[in-house]
Amino acid sequence: MENVYAYIDANARDFVETLIRLVRQPSVSAKGEGIQECAELVEKIMQEVGLKTRIIQPTEGNPVVYGETKSKKSDKTLLFYDHYDVQPPEPIEQWICGPFSGEIREGKIYGRGASDNKGNLISRLKAVESFLKTLDEVPVNVKFVVDGEEEIGSPHLKQIIEKHRELFSADAIIWEFGGTNRRGNPCLHLGLKGILSVELRVEGAVRDVHSANAPLVPNPAWRLTWALNAIKNEKEEILIEGFYENVKEPSSAELHCVERIPFDEKEWKNELGLKEFLLKRSGTEALKALLYHPSCTINGMISGYTGTGSKTIVPRIAMAKLDFRLVPNQTPAEIFGKLVNHLRNSGFKDIKIIKFGSTEPAKTPVTHKFVQTVAKTAEKVYEKQPVIYPLSPGSGPMHLFRKIIGCPVVSVGCSHPESNTHAPNENLNIESFIRGTKFIATILQDFALS
Amino acid sequence: MENVYAYIDANARDFVETLIRLVRQPSVSAKGEGIQECAELVEKIMQEVGLKTRIIQPTEGNPVVYGETKSKKSDKTLLFYDHYDVQPPEPIEQWICGPFSGEIREGKIYGRGASDNKGNLISRLKAVESFLKTLDEVPVNVKFVVDGEEEIGSPHLKQIIEKHRELFSADAIIWEFGGTNRRGNPCLHLGLKGILSVELRVEGAVRDVHSANAPLVPNPAWRLTWALNAIKNEKEEILIEGFYENVKEPSSAELHCVERIPFDEKEWKNELGLKEFLLKRSGTEALKALLYHPSCTINGMISGYTGTGSKTIVPRIAMAKLDFRLVPNQTPAEIFGKLVNHLRNSGFKDIKIIKFGSTEPAKTPVTHKFVQTVAKTAEKVYEKQPVIYPLSPGSGPMHLFRKIIGCPVVSVGCSHPESNTHAPNENLNIESFIRGTKFIATILQDFALS
Repeated sequence: MENVYAYIDANARDFVETLIRLVRQPSVSAKGEGIQECAELVEKIMQEVGLKTRIIQPTEGNPVVYGETKSKKSDKTLLFYDHYDVQPPEPIEQWICGPFSGEIREGKIYGRGASDNKGNLISRLKAVESFLKTLDEVPVNVKFVVDGEEEIGSPHLKQIIEKHRELFSADAIIWEFGGTNRRGNPCLHLGLKGILSVELRVEGAVRDVHSANAPLVPNPAWRLTWALNAIKNEKEEILIEGFYENVKEPSSAELHCVERIPFDEKEWKNELGLKEFLLKRSGTEALKALLYHPSCTINGMISGYTGTGSKTIVPRIAMAKLDFRLVPNQTPAEIFGKLVNHLRNSGFKDIKIIKFGSTEPAKTPVTHKFVQTVAKTAEKVYEKQPVIYPLSPGSGPMHLFRKIIGCPVVSVGCSHPESNTHAPNENLNIESFIRGTKFIATILQDFALS
Repeated sequence: MENVYAYIDANARDFVETLIRLVRQPSVSAKGEGIQECAELVEKIMQEVGLKTRIIQPTEGNPVVYGETKSKKSDKTLLFYDHYDVQPPEPIEQWICGPFSGEIREGKIYGRGASDNKGNLISRLKAVESFLKTLDEVPVNVKFVVDGEEEIGSPHLKQIIEKHRELFSADAIIWEFGGTNRRGNPCLHLGLKGILSVELRVEGAVRDVHSANAPLVPNPAWRLTWALNAIKNEKEEILIEGFYENVKEPSSAELHCVERIPFDEKEWKNELGLKEFLLKRSGTEALKALLYHPSCTINGMISGYTGTGSKTIVPRIAMAKLDFRLVPNQTPAEIFGKLVNHLRNSGFKDIKIIKFGSTEPAKTPVTHKFVQTVAKTAEKVYEKQPVIYPLSPGSGPMHLFRKIIGCPVVSVGCSHPESNTHAPNENLNIESFIRGTKFIATILQDFALS
């Protein structure tokens, strides 16, 4: 491994350049912005690394970029799941530099996707390159599946995986995200919550109406307010009938892991400018809520006049975007059906419900051998105790790989707690990026020997 | 009067040109856009008409444009209250032409302010001009008080009227708005509701946060939803403690007027694209609600991501704009205090409440002699029965004139039901504009003789 590590250190600057190149290519799946160009750029970078590539173009939706390289001495296959699409950069005025500039400031690369997921993708590709360039081979067969719709719930990935079940077959999968915590411990994530994203829309009169007419003109903003209020109350209880009925409580082995997760509560509150967490949750209770409670979030809403000062109108239309984070064994299909029924039964037939992407929750058992392998590698590379999250609060199409490919999935990566994922000023610390590349390289080696 | 009418008909084209000139000058008080320029243009137009003018510049706020001309044979004074500021033009994409273009289409002048209130202002100025140009005198002393903050609740008008009590003294006042109904009957408005405009703001974390953290991060959009829900329920009941305690029911004379108001319910619903009015109100019940019920309206709200598709964040901030329409004897000061207490007592100490402009309700008795004079003139000019609204659903600083100047106030004007006041595609029918100018000229004459 020494040659490989030496190659990584010697070429760190070039790795950073490659990442910046990728960050500078916008790829906002929510808006369909720069998708095709980004997929082509990912394929080009894969080819530069030395992978055999293909672009899988589904009938509908964004392409998946596939890459692979065979090992000369191992039958084992490790698959990396990543994505080249990114979250929208808004609110743009809160960025300290252009959201697609890839500027370096104080040792960090800034830009939407720098951490999630372009940084991790490049780190993995460069780990593979480091083997190919120094030893002319990889310790195990390597496959890359790079999604273009992860940030919108991967609506077309299921059909792609089903169609390419053989091509994507693997013995283990490294998932797209991860990094170190505030104390520098590497984190392993063995599961993901599910997600269901929806938009609620209400229409009133055919145009904005002078608000003097309020006693007669239905107000979509009020209708939306009351509909939202019927979905969740001030105690954070989700009021949709049957919402909680399929929630499976964590096992004692999982709870044991949760209790060992360090939780830098004060630092996190400070960073977010919060005096208290929601409902004054604290300690293990907060952590358990974060990992095991389903949630319902207003992501955004708009109606009527939102400029300076006042404007006396009854708005024509009102809209809210919501996401539901789901835990095993809830499913998005189940929850969507329950939401539709709930609003109908609560007198909100006037609310139009639009479904966006959704994914199911998924997890790999904490006792799986592959989990142990990755944990040991993490401890060796970071020289710190790894932290195991049996379930993670984020979402992704992990359940598709768990169900269709049927192998263990562990998520590790090169992010850090100040990466501002999904927020303005997303960034990746160059030091974390390079260490993360060594981590991935070592996993390739250790997995071959395991 | 024949010479005066002949002058109006002969110069109609020029009147239209003057109105277009004024419409093309934006004057959005909510944004402080074009105010000074518009005040100067109004003064210039007044001078062209032949008035003695002055611009009254308050210490804070927008200038009032004052104009007057003395009668040679009457001691009576008629004051016109108008305003040169306009509502914001948004949503701009719904206009069929530029909102400040003043384009003429199918006999209508389009543009923000074409009807409210630049059309009425020009109609009145041109009525005065018609006397001055044909008879070299006006039948009564005429004063114009042209406000620059009507659309934001005239926050500085009180101090101006108090300071210029003598200058503004009058025997009767013609208020800024009015027109014909769908059947062509001229309408007289004898009172106005009060208004209180506020903005509610809630802040959460210092930045948008990945919605995976929803179980721990307070969501301002949810807080705002619940706070709004604590203000009004689905039955349209305003829940602020003591909100209704000062509501004075209409007198039997007023109710008699209300019962005689024709109410083209179907046409109005059709125009607004509504199957039913709010709470299925209909007939006299609907009309009574429109005129005598206080209301609480969400004028606009915004939080988080409102673009295409989904974005999984907990927003940093949420905001809603509300107006309360108040009836005699509610006051905005009273209601604002009650709102603040109500939110505090309902557990919403985190909601910041910003007060915008406000005005009190006001009315002139239906039995006043000046009301009878204007009603008779209306019947003569329009050859149709006038319709008397003892109270109107709109708002304005009428109470200041009623209280400080202490004379009767009647609102009549040249608008029509399709003027789209406060909405996209505001316009003024040229025919209504010219007839309205004759109406005002005849009021000047008849008031002198009354």
